[in-house]
This record gives sequence, structure tokens and C-alpha cells, in this order.
Amino acid sequence: MATHRFDPTFTDRVIDAMGPKTSPRMRQLMTGLIRHMHDYAREEELTVDEWMAGVKMLNWAGQMSDDKRNEGQLVCDVFGLESLVDEITFKLAEEAKDAPTATAILGPFFRADTPWRQNGEDIVKSKPADAEMAFMQGRVMDFQTKKPLVGASVEVWQASTNGLYEQQDSEQVEFNLRGKFKTDEEGRYWFYCLRPTPYPVPDDGPAGKLLELMDRHPFRPAHIHILATCEGYRPLTTQIFDRKDKYLDNDSVFAVKDSLIVDFVPRENDPEASLELNYDVKLVKDEASTNGV
Amino acid sequence: MATHRFDPTFTDRVIDAMGPKTSPRMRQLMTGLIRHMHDYAREEELTVDEWMAGVKMLNWAGQMSDDKRNEGQLVCDVFGLESLVDEITFKLAEEAKDAPTATAILGPFFRADTPWRQNGEDIVKSKPADAEMAFMQGRVMDFQTKKPLVGASVEVWQASTNGLYEQQDSEQVEFNLRGKFKTDEEGRYWFYCLRPTPYPVPDDGPAGKLLELMDRHPFRPAHIHILATCEGYRPLTTQIFDRKDKYLDNDSVFAVKDSLIVDFVPRENDPEASLELNYDVKLVKDEASTNGV
Repeated sequence: MATHRFDPTFTDRVIDAMGPKTSPRMRQLMTGLIRHMHDYAREEELTVDEWMAGVKMLNWAGQMSDDKRNEGQLVCDVFGLESLVDEITFKLAEEAKDAPTATAILGPFFRADTPWRQNGEDIVKSKPADAEMAFMQGRVMDFQTKKPLVGASVEVWQASTNGLYEQQDSEQVEFNLRGKFKTDEEGRYWFYCLRPTPYPVPDDGPAGKLLELMDRHPFRPAHIHILATCEGYRPLTTQIFDRKDKYLDNDSVFAVKDSLIVDFVPRENDPEASLELNYDVKLVKDEASTNGV
Repeated sequence: MATHRFDPTFTDRVIDAMGPKTSPRMRQLMTGLIRHMHDYAREEELTVDEWMAGVKMLNWAGQMSDDKRNEGQLVCDVFGLESLVDEITFKLAEEAKDAPTATAILGPFFRADTPWRQNGEDIVKSKPADAEMAFMQGRVMDFQTKKPLVGASVEVWQASTNGLYEQQDSEQVEFNLRGKFKTDEEGRYWFYCLRPTPYPVPDDGPAGKLLELMDRHPFRPAHIHILATCEGYRPLTTQIFDRKDKYLDNDSVFAVKDSLIVDFVPRENDPEASLELNYDVKLVKDEASTNGV
């Protein structure tokens, strides 16, 4: 504990105010939160004005958030926090069992109401003039047995070439560049999409303001979001990144992992797409559900 | 630095993403914030679900906040953070010069548009049935010379006996229990108000949820808020607490300081009030303005 010249009993008094009905995990989380918050304020000698500027940012984030946008999440993302808790959660799961495909953050543009589509369908419903079309395919399989998983769901979402997801852009039809696919009897999914392009995270709110204050660019490397689920298996949230992207080493939300970098390769004899991407998803059995716990 | 089994380069990578145009103070504040945030997540092995529950709380705080309510501030208050940054700010001012009257937090119920009132006026515009009336008076003076300050502003605000400030309660007329008074040629201010009563902070938002999760009561000891200003002097924000209050030792926002505890004494021969409170405010010269810096 650093020495300081402020009331040495204060932090313990705040922690000790917790009553006996606090759950053990909540007590642990709140104790750590209060200690770090107070240590931070004392170490940096945070003033009332600086703290109040922070409060305004937080309130602003909430005020910008709605069904289609989660600015509080984006603020965490630019500090690398979502990527870090993702790493922690993955490590805990890995230690409990085996390693599934590396995970990545869900991000603020996921929509719970994305529609089902047929395998082979094109998710590009509003096609930009500079579109580079890709055919994506793969299998969903059991991580341990490599057995294909039939009837698994593969949900994907991506931004258009102008850097906007459909809910951010009135020029795109609803659910453009999104879709949920069900794997066939061989565990396969396939569809057409855009080769993803880099884009800046929205910079009209506190996350953008923080990036500006930290003199950082807002760009994310080109990626496709994937959420794969199958009954009896743990859901997997991931993102796959184009190896050729120039922002791979400095993603504004720090979500890139080496194992998530993929290669788009030329596709022959398909008038619909000039590129092809093969990506298999491995899911880990959910002990809680398979053991009936 | 605690040992842990997560990517040891991650936090430095996030910090090092800051560009050269970040101001020195911003770099310091952001570096400390990122380190504490990441250390906290790793030490407690914060999961995605727990982090997301926190994000929802933060967004909820912003969504509840408007001109009349600052829930983000209240969330900080229940963690003792406003009280702590107030102590820090006061200590910095004290070290830079002399000690003014101890300060206390502004709290989320201050209103910038509070009207001026005449000395001697009663701020109780909607009088509750269980009101105990008090006459409050005092002088504003220079901390060093003890010279009275003429034309200083003393702004006060207090909750009604139902625990609500006027902006929280449609039964109270606007600006009930608030007023700004100008000191006379002897530096004096005086007015009628309620003997303050303890009340719970609003518990219908994330601050209340956090208190519940920490098994804490939401009560604040009875107090009157004061904001005193005078040209050429530093503004002073404070709260004074009734010595007889049962929550003095466990204020839900940790704002009580010994030097801010006051005594209401019986008042004779005044049909308007049965109690009296004398409270002098000492202001410190603002070097920046007096030196013309």
C-alpha cells in the first residue's frame, strides 16, 4: 500500500459498511472495487473537478445507450477491459476443462433479434459499390471428438464498407450483413458476405472523446463477428481478422489474438464471389447441461 | 504487482497505445485508471457476465440522470468516492495556502438556478406537518483576517421531512427549501429553515441496487448543504450535520467530518422558530484572482 497523507481509515470504513447479507462473491468484488477506486484517487490525487468530468462521461455513456447501442460497453472496450475479461473468462473455462476456439469480445453491435437465413444465402442485402464479395464456409464440431454438430447455430455480423453496421446507417436495410445459419447434417454452414474492411468505432460519444484525449485512432482491423451455439455446448463468441489488415497490431479495442487471424483466398469459377474463407468452429461440451446439473 | 496467469504484456500495450499529443496530466490519469481497472479484473478474475452486469449499472445510471438528478454521482457517493476526492482537493488547497472551513461533497441535489432570497426570509415554502422550524444565522469572513465579507453569497439547500428534495417531490413548490442569501454590511446572513431530518438516498436506481447488494442502509444523517462564494475568494461547498442524528457514524455517502457537526439550540421569544443555529463560514483568498494571474 502506498503511503499517503489522507485519512488512513477511510477505505476500510467504506468496505466495513457492507452488511452480513452481502454474498461472498459480491463482498469480494465490492471490496476490490472500493480499494482500487480509492487507491487510484489517492495515488493520482484526483480532484473534484477531474472526478466530476469522469462522472459526466459515464452519464453521457448511459444517455447514448439504447437497444441498438451500448456506449458503456464501448468505453470499457477502448480501455481494453472487455478483451481482458474475455481472456479471464476463457482461461477459467480452459482450466475447468479443455481449450475451445479462442474467444473474442461480443462488441456493442450484436443484435439479439437477428433473423435465421438459409445456408448459401447472401447476407449482403444493401450492396455497397466498393464491395469485395467473399464466400465463407466451415463446420461446427465438438472440440474433443471432432464430430460435426448438426443443427448448431452460427450467427455472423459485419460492418459495411463505409464502416457502419446496419443499425448505425439509415441507408442499409434492417439486418443487412447479419444472419443466423443452422448447420446441416454434416455440421456445415455456408453463405456469402463482404470481405470485411477496417472501420472506426463511433467517436461521437465519451468513448470517442477518451480516444481523442489519449491521442489514439479509433480504427478496428477488418473482422467478422461470430456467435456459435449448440444445445449441450458452451456458446462461443469470437471475431476473425483478415491477416492483410493494417490495424492488426493496434486494434482500438484490443481484441486481436493470433489464433483468430484468417486468410481470404481467391475463389475460382463463382460469379458471386472472388474470395473464399474457410473457418471451422470448435465447441466445448457444457458439463452443467450434459450432466444434468 | 501481483502474479497472475494472464497475458503479462496486455496492460502495457493498452497504455502504450496513447499518442504523443496526450497531455501529461491526462496520460497520468489514464495510465493509473487502466492499471487499476486491469489489476482489479485480474485479481478478482472478473468474468464477462460480471463485467456486463457492471456495464448495465453504469448505463442505467446515465439513463436516469438529467438536469434534476445525477445518478452517476450518487453511484460514486455510495462508494465514498466523492467524499474522498473532496478530502484530496481540500488537502491540496490547504497545502497550497491555509486551511479554510472543512469542505464536504456537493451531492446530486444542488441546483445551479436557485433563486436569491432576502435575509430573514423563510425558505420553507411548502411546510410539512411535522416541521421543526429553525433560525439559522452566521457571518461570512476572511479566513486569515477574520474580516467580515460584505456581499458574499450563501446558498443553502435541504430535504423536507419526507426525505425528498423539492425536485424529487411534486408536492413541494419549486425551489422549496433552497435559497441564496447575500451577506449584509457586517457580513451576516440569516433565514428560517427546517431542522434537517435524516433521509435515504434514492434507491430506485443503480446506487440503491448497489446498497442492497452490499447490505447497507441508504440513510444520510440530517444535514444542510451550504455553498458560499465571494469575489476574490475560493468557493466553499460544505454540509453541516446535526450532532443528535443517529446516522452520524454511518452516513451512506461517507460525508461527515467532526468539524462539520453543529448544535441546534433552543430559541427564545420567536414564534417562527423553536431552534437556533449559528454557523460562521470562513473563506480563503483566491490567489489566482487577487494576484491577477
